[in-house]
Amino acid sequence: MSSQSSTQSQRPTPEHFFRSINAFHLTRALKGALDLDVFTAIAEGNTTAKALAESRQASERGMRILCDFLAVAGFLTKAGGKYELTPDSAMFLDRRLPSYVGGAVEFLLTPTMLQAFDDVAAAVRKGGTVINDEGTMSPDNPFWVRFARAMQPIAFGMAKMLTEFIKLDPGKKTKALDIAASHGMYGLAFARQYPNLEVVAVDWANVLEVGRENAEKFGVADRWRALPGSAFDVDFGANSDKGYDLVLIPNFFHHFDPPTNEKLMRKIHAALNEGGRAITLEFVPDEGRAEPPHAVTFALTMLVTTPRGDAYTFSEYEKMFADSGFSRSELIQLPMGIERMIVSYK
Amino acid sequence: MSSQSSTQSQRPTPEHFFRSINAFHLTRALKGALDLDVFTAIAEGNTTAKALAESRQASERGMRILCDFLAVAGFLTKAGGKYELTPDSAMFLDRRLPSYVGGAVEFLLTPTMLQAFDDVAAAVRKGGTVINDEGTMSPDNPFWVRFARAMQPIAFGMAKMLTEFIKLDPGKKTKALDIAASHGMYGLAFARQYPNLEVVAVDWANVLEVGRENAEKFGVADRWRALPGSAFDVDFGANSDKGYDLVLIPNFFHHFDPPTNEKLMRKIHAALNEGGRAITLEFVPDEGRAEPPHAVTFALTMLVTTPRGDAYTFSEYEKMFADSGFSRSELIQLPMGIERMIVSYK
Repeated sequence: MSSQSSTQSQRPTPEHFFRSINAFHLTRALKGALDLDVFTAIAEGNTTAKALAESRQASERGMRILCDFLAVAGFLTKAGGKYELTPDSAMFLDRRLPSYVGGAVEFLLTPTMLQAFDDVAAAVRKGGTVINDEGTMSPDNPFWVRFARAMQPIAFGMAKMLTEFIKLDPGKKTKALDIAASHGMYGLAFARQYPNLEVVAVDWANVLEVGRENAEKFGVADRWRALPGSAFDVDFGANSDKGYDLVLIPNFFHHFDPPTNEKLMRKIHAALNEGGRAITLEFVPDEGRAEPPHAVTFALTMLVTTPRGDAYTFSEYEKMFADSGFSRSELIQLPMGIERMIVSYK
Repeated sequence: MSSQSSTQSQRPTPEHFFRSINAFHLTRALKGALDLDVFTAIAEGNTTAKALAESRQASERGMRILCDFLAVAGFLTKAGGKYELTPDSAMFLDRRLPSYVGGAVEFLLTPTMLQAFDDVAAAVRKGGTVINDEGTMSPDNPFWVRFARAMQPIAFGMAKMLTEFIKLDPGKKTKALDIAASHGMYGLAFARQYPNLEVVAVDWANVLEVGRENAEKFGVADRWRALPGSAFDVDFGANSDKGYDLVLIPNFFHHFDPPTNEKLMRKIHAALNEGGRAITLEFVPDEGRAEPPHAVTFALTMLVTTPRGDAYTFSEYEKMFADSGFSRSELIQLPMGIERMIVSYK
């Protein structure tokens, strides 16, 4: 893990290969630590293998081996036989905090996801998922209910950040469409910020139940409406009353090929008021698809879980939006570096 | 993968967590690349996604996504849409070369190994493997036949290196015992070097068939003898004729607890001639168990696959050997940095 860069500069060794083929050990060690709630235990002051073992009804030897692994992997520091949390672990892996993201394993290590990665070669041969014809894209797939519940905490922070970049007129009655709303966090963050904003959330009916819960929790249920169904098929209802000022499309386009995305983009374009904006939140690799690492590698997840999904570059998005009638798009690098935002203007 | 170190120094982000929980993607991508023999295809001159797809009957899109992943992961370089092998990949992942180590997946990703890592928390609670009472340590476990075949190429290089450090008198009739001989590579490397050396190899009968094949291939079958059974139970035959000058114990002690190891060390001590040496090849973490990474993290593999195994420090080995009657032990850092050697003198 830590010596990767130096490996390549010296005489050839198979170390990087062995470390990488065993990379699943890290996944499993981290999952084990979350199952045992080791990070919270350390935050509570149990800093030795002995104290941790006692606090979690585990063996001292097992706890020492696990914590040594986590220290090497950069999740703990170790000095004089005592383990401490790194700043990242303290913020995101202590279960008592609202910033806890450990619940994401319920989605990222779901049987469907593990199965999708079981035979990468088969997906490369086929050029898409081999789970079944639609992968995780089948209607009402319970996979997305898991996603909604698991990714809620991390989306909460992301959504709040989005409202710092995208401003609406607070005095005006406005309308936002939240596509593939999931937990609803993105639309809800705007609804909390703007008392005159009405939000319409599109997703599968089973998934929108999670969004509904959150709308009630945030006290904005009267301005939040569920529109169940496929974003490609449902009527966005932009004609009956008036159009949308904002359409949010967080983490959705990556599941489809460009022609499919353009179909949806044209539908979004038609539903927007003049001057309205489409806000895309995505894993966007640089043009050469060499950086940033997580955006480049995310494409593999799309290859193995969807028929035709991908991680698109900004120029690919720009073209899709332009071809769908949008006047211009801009790429915005968000401070929390995992995803990027594309703002496309009608 | 590449930005781990910088992550920790900035304001807290969950990036390292998400990258790490998804670490199994790397395992699976690499396995997929080996299944498709992508590295050999690149070595053969197929350097674009299109050419690679054609040479391996795969989709271009799948190949591009996979190769981009491999480039980010440090196995390929990418420039102008062309992929090239890194020096490490060229040496160790081109199937046409004897230095190819990709076969190791047949052992490292064997169903038993994957199952062992399925529930790390349970192993930490118990303090040992939860596969069954003995884990991979049960008699005649076919797991070790897989190991023998898969690890042969990498052991070949290691064994050759060992003979550069451990010298015998070429003019004298000598005898070596190869414990947990597996593919037999370690004993065979010495047999090839010393025409007056006789090698006795101990392992399960099913495993020793692999060693026998290699002894014949190397033309030393007349001086190589299989001694099937558990190293703890079989008679090393040191009394009947004469004792051993060398006892090789490559990658064996890590499967057991110190009392069990000392039992075997005493048996080895008794089988050695005066001045004889026990050569231990192992993953040996530094005293603080913080470095080197692979040796520290290897302990987790022992936790989940064996009842009581561990990655022992040199001072722990030194004590075990001293308590078993050895006069002194020395730690030797090998040039190929994965394992370390301990030489213990009778």
